[in-house]
Parts: sequence; structure tokens; C-alpha cells
Amino acid sequence: MNDTDRLRIQRRFELLQGDICAGLEQLDGSGRFSEDIWERPGGGGGRSRIIAGKLIEKGGVGFSAVHGVVPDKMATILQADVDEKFFATGVSIVLHPHNPWLPIIHMNVRYFEMDNGNYWFGGGIDLTPHYIFAEEAIHFHKQLKEICDRFEPDAYLKFKATADDYFYIPHRKETRGVGGIFFDHLKARDGMTKSQIEDFVFSVGNAFVSIYQNAVENNRDRAFIEEQIQWQRLRRGRYAEFNLVYDRGTKFGLETDGRAESILMSLPPLAAWEYNHQVQNGSLEQFTLEHLRKGIDWINYSLAD
Amino acid sequence: MNDTDRLRIQRRFELLQGDICAGLEQLDGSGRFSEDIWERPGGGGGRSRIIAGKLIEKGGVGFSAVHGVVPDKMATILQADVDEKFFATGVSIVLHPHNPWLPIIHMNVRYFEMDNGNYWFGGGIDLTPHYIFAEEAIHFHKQLKEICDRFEPDAYLKFKATADDYFYIPHRKETRGVGGIFFDHLKARDGMTKSQIEDFVFSVGNAFVSIYQNAVENNRDRAFIEEQIQWQRLRRGRYAEFNLVYDRGTKFGLETDGRAESILMSLPPLAAWEYNHQVQNGSLEQFTLEHLRKGIDWINYSLAD
Repeated sequence: MNDTDRLRIQRRFELLQGDICAGLEQLDGSGRFSEDIWERPGGGGGRSRIIAGKLIEKGGVGFSAVHGVVPDKMATILQADVDEKFFATGVSIVLHPHNPWLPIIHMNVRYFEMDNGNYWFGGGIDLTPHYIFAEEAIHFHKQLKEICDRFEPDAYLKFKATADDYFYIPHRKETRGVGGIFFDHLKARDGMTKSQIEDFVFSVGNAFVSIYQNAVENNRDRAFIEEQIQWQRLRRGRYAEFNLVYDRGTKFGLETDGRAESILMSLPPLAAWEYNHQVQNGSLEQFTLEHLRKGIDWINYSLAD
Repeated sequence: MNDTDRLRIQRRFELLQGDICAGLEQLDGSGRFSEDIWERPGGGGGRSRIIAGKLIEKGGVGFSAVHGVVPDKMATILQADVDEKFFATGVSIVLHPHNPWLPIIHMNVRYFEMDNGNYWFGGGIDLTPHYIFAEEAIHFHKQLKEICDRFEPDAYLKFKATADDYFYIPHRKETRGVGGIFFDHLKARDGMTKSQIEDFVFSVGNAFVSIYQNAVENNRDRAFIEEQIQWQRLRRGRYAEFNLVYDRGTKFGLETDGRAESILMSLPPLAAWEYNHQVQNGSLEQFTLEHLRKGIDWINYSLAD
């Protein structure tokens, strides 16, 4: 346990939330974040920030720093004893854009520490386009690779594969989107200090706004029709399915009696379910479904395909 | 094991699906069911019937009769060995009406049998009004009580309490709707034959159309405004949360690699999530939220309250 580390990391996440919100307000051009401060009965609390703007239909940027005694349901996951004390802090974001041509984006960066001195960093960033455009998926992954390459040579491939596995909807046999990077249990080891890991986690966090800016700039003013809005709503339905059925953070939060409104900030403003919806051959919708699978090497993806 | 029982019960469920669909088409007045026949790779299959009409925005009436070897994930729940064989058949319904003044309704009736001779019936019927009207909740429960009273004197109270416990959303601290009846593991015991239980299950099934008819007749032509549609979508969001996070049938189906489109027929056509939505004091929305709790004695509910 290291109180200086805790406080510094918590403070950095708090500042990161502020920076990201400021950046997103600028990117949105009209929306302003409102905020809710909440307390966790068992210890700690958070600050949930919500935006509904011109670009972003529903966005949430949450910061939390919670502590307390490890709940029963967490003990196994945390490899901890039931009476041990923990501390957890981080920033979590989901943005649902109005325009169906633009992607949903998600980021989470977090730090966890047990009173026995054990700690780790975790997080990730992934993109869920309603319509997949290869150029944008490539560009998204190249930006993530660049951040990972500065950390460790094999980090991108490892974290990309973890994201492919994690953001997968088994009952739909499709990935949630074009993936990204996902990492957990990062701690000091041979040739890697805690401070280097912290730097990596914050470089992911600090890159968020520019990554989303790049993901939306080409299509933010692209016109759309009602059919494309309906497609967006169907894809958002899948997003809700993933989050409610599989997402560990969501399940963990709900099972440990977390603040439902903050945990479920990630859910879409409006989602649709149609029985057995079919897409047309050769359509953009079909292209999208064909690219919702694991193991696509977006860095070396050939646009000639 | 009793092949005659199996075949008869399966056939009765198949006929029940047909009767209910015919009744619902008449009630709807314009919609017609389409159907999908599907096969289960492990054995058996089903017939999913879907309607989109004037009254019913999205409705599904599913019949299935499946058999095979007990999957790993089922063994504990079924108190069975992994290599045992099972047979399961039943009818499952969810109707989402267009008009927000009308309730969502759900019914499930099922029969389960192991090759070792163990068997049980299960099912239930529950109502999820977007707007709760006490008179209608009372009338709904009185109809269920009448059916239960013909079966066993204490059945209604027992099955009503089970429904209250089952259709509960812990993270929202609210029930899914005004409840109904829910029962499982019904088998012959002192003073109760298998055939009497079968009769009870089919009296629940056969009452479905008239129960829904009574639940919609007062308000089916009642005008509504955009705010009420948005409230309906928010309530549908909670319905999706219950089904995806807690519903045992849904989880079981998804985990055992069931047919996703049939399992998720229950999801609403369009659902909304707003961050921290608040209702006005004294509004119908507030009345609704106040009555989404366990243990309301609808039979003796005083309208003077």
C-alpha cells in the first residue's frame, strides 16, 4: 500500500475526466456536461458527467474512487480474502452519437489496489461503428498501436487480441464492433516499472479525445435517412445486449449494489429489436456484419479486398 | 418416462400456440402472424410466431419441443447428471403493444421430463403496465386467483409471491410490473395427480387471450402524446434490463447456445435509456413507480387509497 500513489493516481484520473469533458464539449460544439456527485455507502464515491449535444446524442464520462471491504461476490475475481480492504479508481466513458454514420466509442482506465500491497492497472478503448468503414477501423487501430508501441513491442498485438475476445457476443456470434485494445492486471515486472505502466494508462486516457475526433471528422455532417437510423438502433440493441449480458464491469457493478444510473450510463438513448432482421446482399449493413469478427488484422488490412 | 404423456403434452402445447395466435389476431384486428420453423442441433425444434399489427407493435408466441443430453451448464439446475437425457416442451409469449396506456404481457407454460422418469410443469403469467391502473391490476389478479382457486386453495397466494420475487429488478429496486403468478417444479404429490397439474397449466394457457383482452379493452383507443411514448420506451428499457440480466429462461437459453432470435423475441421494438430520469410529483408516472414493489395485495387493494 502506498498512499502517495493512490492519491496521485486518483487525482490524475479526476483531472483526466475534466480534460476529456472539456475536449468533448469543444468537439461537440453545442453540448455541455452536467454533473452528479455521488457517494458509495461502503466508502468513496464519484462524479458522473453527462452530455446531450449536437454530435453526441448521449454521452457519459464517469470518474470514481471507491474503497472498502472486499464484497463476497468480488473475493474470487480479486483473488482476495473477504475481509481485505481495496481501493479502486478510474474513468469510464461511452459516447452514443446522433449520426448513424459515426461510431459508438468506449474507454475505461482504472487502478486497483489491495491493502496487502497488491495492485494493478487495467482498461482499454474500443470502437463500435454502426457502419464499419475499413479506412476508419485501420486508422483507429494504427493510433492504438502507436500508443502501445511506445510501451512495449508486443503490447498492441496482445491487447488487441484480448479486446477481440472480450468484446464478443457469443449468442450473436459477432464482435461488438471493430475492437481496439483491452488490458488488465498490469503491474511492475522484469524491465517494467509501476510508473511506466501508469504512464501508458494515462497516454491511452489522454489520447481519447483526439482518437474520437479522428473517428468522427469524415462523417459528422454526412446525411442519413430513416432506414439508417433504424439500423443504428438495431446495432445499439446489440450494444445493450453485450453490456447487460456479458460486460464484467456492468455485472460486477450491479451485483455489488453499485449506483445503477452510473453503471448504466453506457446504455443507448434509443435501441431497437426486430425479429430476425435480414440485410441486403452487397449493402453497407452486410459489409458491417461481415467485419464483426475476431482476428481481423486491421493494421495490415488491404483496402483492395 | 412416459412417451404417451410426452406426445400428448407436446401436442397440446402446439395446439395452444395455434389457439392463442388465432385469438390474438382477432384481438389485434389487423396483424397476422408469420412463422419460422427451426431445428435444434442437439434434438427437437420449434415454431416461432411473430406479429406486428394495429394493437400489438411486436409480439412473439413461441412453441418448442426439444430433447437431448443435459448440457453441462444445465446439470446443476436440473439436479441431473451430465449424461442424462431430457425432454422439454412449452409455449412462451411476450406482447408489446403500440399504445403506452396498454400493458406488456408475458406468459410461459412448460413441461420438463428426464429419462429417469422425473418430470415437472412450470410457468406463469405476469403483466407489465407502462402506466399502472389499480382497477386493471386488481382485475388481472382476480382472474388469476380464480384459475388458481380451482386448482388448490393456497395456490394463488403462493404463486403470486413467487412471481413478486421472480419479476424483480434488484439494481432498480423495483418489480418488473404488477406481477402475476409464477410456478415451477409442479409434480404429483399427496392429493394431486399429474393430470390435475396438467389441467391447471392448460387452464392458465387457455385463459391467456381473454386475460389480455380484458387488460386492453378500456384503453386501446385512448389517445397519447409523445411524452407518454417516451415513458413507454423507458419502461421497455427496464423490461430489457430484466430479461437480459436476470431472466432465467433467457440466460439459460443463451448459455446453452439456444436460438437467439427466438429467445430474444421478448425484447421490445424500441426502448430508451435516459440518465437519471425523474418523474413529477403526483403524476401517473410516479403512481406507477410507487406500485412497482413486492407484496401488494391486489385482490384486496382499496381503490379509495
